[in-house]
Amino acid sequence: MNFASDNTSGAAPEILAALAAANEGAASSYGADPITARLEAKLADLFEHEVAVFPVATGTAANALALAALVPPWGGVFCHPMAHIECDEANAPEFYSGGAKLLAIDGPDGKLGAADLAARLPGGLGNVHHAQPAAVSLTQATECGTAYRADEIRAIATVAHRHGLAVHVDGARFANALVHLKASPADLTWRAGVDVLSFGATKNGAMGAEAIVFFDPARARELPFRRKRAGHLFSKMRFLSAQLDAYVTDDLWLRNAGHANAAAARLAAGLTALPGVTLRYPVEANELFVEMPDAMIVGLADAGARFYRWPHEASTCIRLVTSWNTPDAEVADFLAHATRFAIV
Amino acid sequence: MNFASDNTSGAAPEILAALAAANEGAASSYGADPITARLEAKLADLFEHEVAVFPVATGTAANALALAALVPPWGGVFCHPMAHIECDEANAPEFYSGGAKLLAIDGPDGKLGAADLAARLPGGLGNVHHAQPAAVSLTQATECGTAYRADEIRAIATVAHRHGLAVHVDGARFANALVHLKASPADLTWRAGVDVLSFGATKNGAMGAEAIVFFDPARARELPFRRKRAGHLFSKMRFLSAQLDAYVTDDLWLRNAGHANAAAARLAAGLTALPGVTLRYPVEANELFVEMPDAMIVGLADAGARFYRWPHEASTCIRLVTSWNTPDAEVADFLAHATRFAIV
Amino acid sequence: MNFASDNTSGAAPEILAALAAANEGAASSYGADPITARLEAKLADLFEHEVAVFPVATGTAANALALAALVPPWGGVFCHPMAHIECDEANAPEFYSGGAKLLAIDGPDGKLGAADLAARLPGGLGNVHHAQPAAVSLTQATECGTAYRADEIRAIATVAHRHGLAVHVDGARFANALVHLKASPADLTWRAGVDVLSFGATKNGAMGAEAIVFFDPARARELPFRRKRAGHLFSKMRFLSAQLDAYVTDDLWLRNAGHANAAAARLAAGLTALPGVTLRYPVEANELFVEMPDAMIVGLADAGARFYRWPHEASTCIRLVTSWNTPDAEVADFLAHATRFAIV
Amino acid sequence: MNFASDNTSGAAPEILAALAAANEGAASSYGADPITARLEAKLADLFEHEVAVFPVATGTAANALALAALVPPWGGVFCHPMAHIECDEANAPEFYSGGAKLLAIDGPDGKLGAADLAARLPGGLGNVHHAQPAAVSLTQATECGTAYRADEIRAIATVAHRHGLAVHVDGARFANALVHLKASPADLTWRAGVDVLSFGATKNGAMGAEAIVFFDPARARELPFRRKRAGHLFSKMRFLSAQLDAYVTDDLWLRNAGHANAAAARLAAGLTALPGVTLRYPVEANELFVEMPDAMIVGLADAGARFYRWPHEASTCIRLVTSWNTPDAEVADFLAHATRFAIV
Repeated sequence: MNFASDNTSGAAPEILAALAAANEGAASSYGADPITARLEAKLADLFEHEVAVFPVATGTAANALALAALVPPWGGVFCHPMAHIECDEANAPEFYSGGAKLLAIDGPDGKLGAADLAARLPGGLGNVHHAQPAAVSLTQATECGTAYRADEIRAIATVAHRHGLAVHVDGARFANALVHLKASPADLTWRAGVDVLSFGATKNGAMGAEAIVFFDPARARELPFRRKRAGHLFSKMRFLSAQLDAYVTDDLWLRNAGHANAAAARLAAGLTALPGVTLRYPVEANELFVEMPDAMIVGLADAGARFYRWPHEASTCIRLVTSWNTPDAEVADFLAHATRFAIV
Repeated sequence: MNFASDNTSGAAPEILAALAAANEGAASSYGADPITARLEAKLADLFEHEVAVFPVATGTAANALALAALVPPWGGVFCHPMAHIECDEANAPEFYSGGAKLLAIDGPDGKLGAADLAARLPGGLGNVHHAQPAAVSLTQATECGTAYRADEIRAIATVAHRHGLAVHVDGARFANALVHLKASPADLTWRAGVDVLSFGATKNGAMGAEAIVFFDPARARELPFRRKRAGHLFSKMRFLSAQLDAYVTDDLWLRNAGHANAAAARLAAGLTALPGVTLRYPVEANELFVEMPDAMIVGLADAGARFYRWPHEASTCIRLVTSWNTPDAEVADFLAHATRFAIV
Repeated sequence: MNFASDNTSGAAPEILAALAAANEGAASSYGADPITARLEAKLADLFEHEVAVFPVATGTAANALALAALVPPWGGVFCHPMAHIECDEANAPEFYSGGAKLLAIDGPDGKLGAADLAARLPGGLGNVHHAQPAAVSLTQATECGTAYRADEIRAIATVAHRHGLAVHVDGARFANALVHLKASPADLTWRAGVDVLSFGATKNGAMGAEAIVFFDPARARELPFRRKRAGHLFSKMRFLSAQLDAYVTDDLWLRNAGHANAAAARLAAGLTALPGVTLRYPVEANELFVEMPDAMIVGLADAGARFYRWPHEASTCIRLVTSWNTPDAEVADFLAHATRFAIV
Repeated sequence: MNFASDNTSGAAPEILAALAAANEGAASSYGADPITARLEAKLADLFEHEVAVFPVATGTAANALALAALVPPWGGVFCHPMAHIECDEANAPEFYSGGAKLLAIDGPDGKLGAADLAARLPGGLGNVHHAQPAAVSLTQATECGTAYRADEIRAIATVAHRHGLAVHVDGARFANALVHLKASPADLTWRAGVDVLSFGATKNGAMGAEAIVFFDPARARELPFRRKRAGHLFSKMRFLSAQLDAYVTDDLWLRNAGHANAAAARLAAGLTALPGVTLRYPVEANELFVEMPDAMIVGLADAGARFYRWPHEASTCIRLVTSWNTPDAEVADFLAHATRFAIV
């Protein structure tokens, strides 16, 4: 019963098979290989738009490189105070951007809202004393397990673009949001005004692969240099590209995310049926934040379930994360144990 | 006949098998998995010394993180003017260190010498106007395909340590040097005064994995933070560690390097037997720099051989790089073609 | 009637005279001159403590250099959300520290409190995913024109030191706070646990001079290099040191601050006697934040008074800043005009 | 007999007088004052060209800010290996640029040549593995006391611009070069292809003031933000601008430089008349590098003359620097002593 994180899961068999296939023969290094070329074409099809694609190995690298391409060192990035870039990347955005500042805009369910963004702009734009707002970054799905709808993104992007800010999406769990919203990749990105997407695969079945996707290749001109000087340009790039290629082939990414979301939904339904158990946020992707009696938490942990109390060890809220390969039996077991520890 | 680079080769079967094996079941993320623990123990055995080990995916990341741990932003790193960190990492050492300067010390065959280092020290040490020398970095094997012997390293390290400088080795081709010198890993590192090693595996049969190895763990205290904020901490770390674990198991790394070195030696012997063909540097690892008649270069290229003219397109010197899986037949073919184009 | 800022005032005659005196003859450059030596001795006397002193020309440089000496690039600095380092230094702390993050702790009257700091610690200390709290920075006097008392500082420093955080004070208006509190320099700094002080002089009568004062010289070891590589080491240092030397001679700094504070107090007393006028914060230094009827604001501006609406142009709150040379007549005139525009 | 450096001299009386005059009344801060506006107009006249002007306090700040505006973090700056930016600024260009690399081009008498620059280009342009050449920086006068002629600059700029590189001049001793060459400010800058000039005043009679002068204001758009976040935006800017304004008024800068150059020329003439004394470089500005018998060096030092052996303490070459206020008597005394110690 491992609900600690989706990154405790391994890689999907299709990903492993793609790596083995990619290993045949010699291939040009640093991205000049046919798999990388094929990937870019596939993503252009998938997103129904011209794209510039940069595979990297981690989500933090994808976010930090993307943001550094959008904001100057004296710039600012609006984001939710719970955003991964703000809380969980050890100052990577500041490092890569050369000192830009993250500017928090709070909002319910892990989402920031267009009106709150509008209230902060033009802010200090043009005033040398202040951080210059240059981008807004949305986490999709959010750190609360919710998803930004296309219209919400579009409203935010409209405000952002009016003031010259770029729109970035940290899509570490983009697939989970997409599946929940039954939207197309285009709907949740460029059609809604997104300029750059960190397209996550690692949490959803890859071994370690993400793609930075620019919908305006002109913005990506410096990215090759930024990626190389950061040590994120793989010499044997084919092994990153092969993962991403397999990821978007035959809907693997959607099937994986669908599995994880369904497991989360079953957990949510089962748990909220128990007395004293409530959800802190709507369950729209593969994360649940569940308030429950302390005895239930202790009981579940004693029964071998793995998860974190959230946001800290003294909380009576737990975070459960399901994965592309969460066994149905583990969901059932977890619910059975929870039921056992419910206060009747 | 692909002699363009050792990074055009794929991964060794043992590495692929290790990845598949590592994929079984869930594993704690960010390095808290048993494979990563096992790797650290194996490397301690291999190097006969306490070590702190940090797997990363690229050699540039390994070098830049290692150097940033050794030198302050106002520091300087002595290296050969041909060093990879100076020529081929797009200012990554400067980026990671926050602005340190690489200070060139030239020398024959891609090696810098202890006497020349001594002549540069104490240099500006303690003077706020000058870059503060804080480390010396050696490339092993060098960019010229030669290897630093243990006594050469020890002489350099003695000078460096006398002035408070740390000693780093960029071991992207460490295995090739080791096999050539018939030395032990300890002999070429801490016993000779090396403080930190970028232990390369990618060029020698891994998919994408290097280990930063500190022989004094006290120096490594900040490395976890540096690695994370650079986006080089893998969530599914087991897949980096598994590659490195397989790499040092059953002498895979030595067998692979031995194969590459032998191919290089055969090329060297065969080519220098031809009229008008000379080696620019001794062949001690898996790279050859061969002066030859232009007609021979053109002929080999026309015959389908892949390689680079060196150091630029107008040179009548070519660089040949052999690999862990260079087919014997390709070596034989290359020599046959070269013989055909030799001026009799 | 110029109440726009204390930095619209020129330099005190004593400062100008000191510059002229310092100009006699040749002097060793880069701080090896007798005036700089004398300054360090005087500040040690003034603070009753060993100090390491680094004159620089601007408050932003003083703050950014001081903080960079206290926190690593992956670190965090707790400060009030209104702090100058957070709002008005264009990401200088991020630039100088190499990417550290400012972490806001709100509190009334521009002050953060020890209990709120304690609630945030140990926070992510030791966890590579999070910014590592490494310092707390207090603004003295605050951006609200209030002053931290010695016991408030001591409580904060006790919490900070317990968790290994250093304590910095941005003392751009340190003199104004000191005069208000009738405390000694030692009381408000090292005796209360302050590790480093940005000792401001520019706003209080200097031409352009601040001193970074370390109470533990061991922490200052890297500062000479940091200052030089930032272009903040003056070749003709005597002209910075002479300003600071004159500043602390014959209580010039206290007399100047006393004058400014008295003017602020008179404005506060006079304005709050008028109907519809209230102070947003206690007036403890040389800044007032005054809520008043819009007609009064317009009337005062039309009468030629200079000031800013605060925090933005649509506010019915104005900020008034008095200075070391605010003429008594301007205070009287301002009050007379305000009285004229008061709603009776 | 102080020939240690031109920065051991104080400020010219005209500069001090200008500071006193600037001190009258209140003035808008951060450069919105009339003196700063007047300065920009005067410099436009002086250079016969539209300019964007940014006063700062130190030469290192001027150079580092200017270069950071011209090159990306992954860029390279060609310069002479003796350049101040390479040897004497403690990695400031690397810090400000975010990690750019200085690329040495050697040449006689402290100058790099157009042909040698051409031989290095296009170099790695467009190749992500290499530093991207983005600027060339010339020191005027050079660190050897020589001056680039207009035609030399033009030849270099032509090569640079052909490859998209910008041309920067570190003009810490620009006045000395100009006076020697009897050229106009325009001739030695934009007419010869210079894009940005660090216009020095400190060494030539100011207290601490330099101006970054852009001849293409479009290149200067980010400079205000860069300057502020570096802590180099003075609140009481009028005091920097007043120094620079006085500096270029009534030819003060040319008179000062003329005085220093004449003193250097007299020293050169007198010393080379002595047996065993030779000049290492032509004397074209206010620095001499003089090879002389060790006994003469010792004798001069014993007689109270101040200077440095060059480039290090064991050399039998000394560096003499004259200044805007070098007394004629000190020159005469120095020559008399040297004559006394000459080997007859």
